[in-house]
Amino acid sequence: MPTTIKDVAARADVSVATVSRVLNGVASVDPAMARRVRAAAKALGYEGNPVARSLRTQKSDLLALIISDIGNPFFTAVARGVEDVAQTAGYSVLLCNSDEDSQKESRYLDIARRSMVAGVLLSPNAGGSDVTALQRANIPVVAIDRALDESIDSVFVDSSEGARSATEHLLEQGWRRPGCITGPREADTAERRARGFREALTQSGTHPSDSLIRYADYRVAGGRAATAELLDSPTPPDAFFVANSEMVIGAIEEIRSRGMRIGHDIGLVGFDDTPWAPFVDPPLTVIDQPAYDIGAEATRMLLQRVNRASTDSSNQTSDLARTVLLRTSLIVRGSSLRRL
Amino acid sequence: MPTTIKDVAARADVSVATVSRVLNGVASVDPAMARRVRAAAKALGYEGNPVARSLRTQKSDLLALIISDIGNPFFTAVARGVEDVAQTAGYSVLLCNSDEDSQKESRYLDIARRSMVAGVLLSPNAGGSDVTALQRANIPVVAIDRALDESIDSVFVDSSEGARSATEHLLEQGWRRPGCITGPREADTAERRARGFREALTQSGTHPSDSLIRYADYRVAGGRAATAELLDSPTPPDAFFVANSEMVIGAIEEIRSRGMRIGHDIGLVGFDDTPWAPFVDPPLTVIDQPAYDIGAEATRMLLQRVNRASTDSSNQTSDLARTVLLRTSLIVRGSSLRRL
Repeated sequence: MPTTIKDVAARADVSVATVSRVLNGVASVDPAMARRVRAAAKALGYEGNPVARSLRTQKSDLLALIISDIGNPFFTAVARGVEDVAQTAGYSVLLCNSDEDSQKESRYLDIARRSMVAGVLLSPNAGGSDVTALQRANIPVVAIDRALDESIDSVFVDSSEGARSATEHLLEQGWRRPGCITGPREADTAERRARGFREALTQSGTHPSDSLIRYADYRVAGGRAATAELLDSPTPPDAFFVANSEMVIGAIEEIRSRGMRIGHDIGLVGFDDTPWAPFVDPPLTVIDQPAYDIGAEATRMLLQRVNRASTDSSNQTSDLARTVLLRTSLIVRGSSLRRL
Repeated sequence: MPTTIKDVAARADVSVATVSRVLNGVASVDPAMARRVRAAAKALGYEGNPVARSLRTQKSDLLALIISDIGNPFFTAVARGVEDVAQTAGYSVLLCNSDEDSQKESRYLDIARRSMVAGVLLSPNAGGSDVTALQRANIPVVAIDRALDESIDSVFVDSSEGARSATEHLLEQGWRRPGCITGPREADTAERRARGFREALTQSGTHPSDSLIRYADYRVAGGRAATAELLDSPTPPDAFFVANSEMVIGAIEEIRSRGMRIGHDIGLVGFDDTPWAPFVDPPLTVIDQPAYDIGAEATRMLLQRVNRASTDSSNQTSDLARTVLLRTSLIVRGSSLRRL
């Protein structure tokens, strides 16, 4: 006689309804109880009814990708990398835009958990993210762009190395007093990019004054306001390293509105290459991140976790988390050169 | 004595499990049977248990937005409009990138249906989309960017009017032989933009030869290839109207690679404004679509349907579908001017 749901309920000492909820992936069940049910079902070899099985199967072909700014081409390039790898492996991707808003982010993390996605790719918001509920639900997470904590796999670039090489390049071109516009103080990418900037100045024998650094919001308007502030300061910079491709548009707007000529009166290096950067006047020098590769590599790591989790019901976080650090590259165009 | 799930099952003549599945929003139930269950539950005033209620509430605060190209800034601006309106109304947005792939799109439509989202915003793929399953499940749909069919609410711009004014502008500037690079032949936006181009030529007394029109893929590489083809033709155009902001990057690449000067040797008007368009050399003349407003307006229309559907269980498509047509505007910068 085949095992029935009643046998599982009896062994786990819960109601049939609870077994059904757990095996159908309804997440509102106490985790300890859910574990008991799964263990009982496993011990008895209970497969559930076809509807429940198909529900589980349907739900497990989804990944969630939570990004912090959909308007930033970096993240849409990451998303392309994620989708290509996911699709090849038979997964669909639900994209969520947390907008650097921790409340929105936690709502999306909750939705991902309730939707029983197979795994989550997360670009943590600046203030840090709480993924413990996902971990409890045994849903693997990979952090992209920004580090989360040591227990989570992550893929990002060496931001401070990128910032250092941008700043060294400006100094080599003969700019005397580079300034830095970076992201929000809480974002680890912003802090790392500011650090790389400082390191390059220190190495060149200059004291990296904090008056040359502005923390902005990684958005166009914030980049413009920070550029204005620095240009209005008593000893303004003669060049800028700007830490993402949104803020660099704001910087260009502000510099142009003052009638200053980029590549003559002022030097400029952005972070993140974009399709339009070569056609700006003058063409924009940038630190390029391999955004597509970040997405693709993170998805490969996530799917390894997913596959391991499905063949082995022990906690997926038991083995060591991995961090993959990709390299940036400097693409020199006209905006950083010093033509007198 | 309060009504129980058994009473509902008896009245609808189905099993208790089916009632539970229907009221918990599991979508694998025969629609006719589901309707019977809902009618019975309504007639008896059955509210379900708190878990089921909370599940329904949790699931109904989601909208799905299915776009056809996440790399296109037009769609990310639409997404911002969608998110702002949705968030104000207490909804979260799951974004899906169909990549102009009808298989991917139908997978996402299926996921939206199974996830019991409250409503779907769909940028239909070029080949047309099948939303009958959503309609059967009583999930409202609003089409954006491209029309779907008469039974579906839709929000888009007057593409042919935009294309006409772009082409008229090129002729007014003194360009003699404008060419047109539009999207895939199956996409109604592509066809409408080509039509507007033809109309402007006819109106100016020129025969709009098909040899001046190329259908490409709305992507950078396709735009570049189409530009090369037209420039290599026996009687090449002296100006281009390019029907989206991805393909115009390809056009700029190709024109520059040949040492031709935009705004001198060749005129250029793009479709869709972008943050970088003013900084290209020369600044890019464009037809601007109110992308944010398209997303915001479509979401307001969708939420009206959602609210009506939740207060009235009759079929939401019973009242007439609405089409909102927004206007484009011409932004003249340097690329379309004819400096000799």
